Amino acid sequence: MINRGLLIIISGPSGTGKGTLCKTLLKQNKDLNLSVSMTTRKPRKDEIEGKNYFFVDKATFQNMISNDGFLEYACVFDNYYGTPREYVEKMLSSGKDVILEIDIQGALKVKEKYSEGVFIFILPPSMEELKNRIKKRGSETEESFLKRFKMAYKEINYVSKYNYVVVNDEVKKAVKKLESIIVAEKCRVDRIKDSILLTKEGLLHGQFND
Amino acid sequence: MINRGLLIIISGPSGTGKGTLCKTLLKQNKDLNLSVSMTTRKPRKDEIEGKNYFFVDKATFQNMISNDGFLEYACVFDNYYGTPREYVEKMLSSGKDVILEIDIQGALKVKEKYSEGVFIFILPPSMEELKNRIKKRGSETEESFLKRFKMAYKEINYVSKYNYVVVNDEVKKAVKKLESIIVAEKCRVDRIKDSILLTKEGLLHGQFND
Repeated sequence: MINRGLLIIISGPSGTGKGTLCKTLLKQNKDLNLSVSMTTRKPRKDEIEGKNYFFVDKATFQNMISNDGFLEYACVFDNYYGTPREYVEKMLSSGKDVILEIDIQGALKVKEKYSEGVFIFILPPSMEELKNRIKKRGSETEESFLKRFKMAYKEINYVSKYNYVVVNDEVKKAVKKLESIIVAEKCRVDRIKDSILLTKEGLLHGQFND
Repeated sequence: MINRGLLIIISGPSGTGKGTLCKTLLKQNKDLNLSVSMTTRKPRKDEIEGKNYFFVDKATFQNMISNDGFLEYACVFDNYYGTPREYVEKMLSSGKDVILEIDIQGALKVKEKYSEGVFIFILPPSMEELKNRIKKRGSETEESFLKRFKMAYKEINYVSKYNYVVVNDEVKKAVKKLESIIVAEKCRVDRIKDSILLTKEGLLHGQFND
């Protein structure tokens, strides 16, 4: 019996460093798989189909929307982006764990369709530090900086919709926490009790928890 | 603001090796504290008051029972054993994490009084291995062996009352899982969201998650 993989949603306001955390987490844990999004935007140079994105045309994307084919999707500057449901579902049912790095709006949509996911909210160590990080991101005007900062401050209220909070003070420490959360979730009784109680023979083969 | 400590209940059938796991866990994590039980039995040579047990007379123990002074207690061969509620409560409210190594009956009683605890069920890697471990424990008769084995087999049904399952196949691996569960529980939103949402200033001081 294969235990279902975990869908691990790593999310948080802009500037909290979730991208760096995911990259490091995936580098250190080769058994984790990053979810690949689908988009209608044109591939950039060096972008690889099925690795960076699945590239499709607008009609295909819209058709998939009608067939409830996305865990979440959004339209940004006339381009669609979405998380294909079947692609994720296939990995999960073959026992693979899937990492989904996504903004807060997207995470909340995923939660509606897949509440068994592990929803992790990344927080900055302080609002001061968040200011610095948003500023460092580049040549933004004071106005666009303030807009992003206020947005981040507001988004923190959504933390209560998540299962876990990880403060990204040091990448190494934060990634360690993400790894611990994944290990712990695989030990949760509500995820594995059926396999223990329905067939105690399972125990005879020592097939749990790994 | 001090985050409350965790009460971590490590429990499971006889022969699963929970004692060894707890000893190793405590040795490797000096910030964890083992709960000290209270008993009416006489101290053995080398046993230290307040370390191995709190030793009290029967009247004191019974008086504490009347005052709901135990998270759980039991009477074994005319001696009382119990987990003093106030002692544990004091550690938790000062932010200390407390490990309680206890049998299944005891754990279920603790859950009635302190459902916020982290309840971890230790499983043997297989029923075959459990047989071997119970046998190794010493010069038991076939009858007493069978009694213990059947009891363990039956007790596994209580796994659904727990939060986590850890299979004790290798001590090192199992302890790593226990450590991960503790780290993850400290990141759980339902444990810390109040401190984030009530006072976002908390964020300004980076006081979460540690």
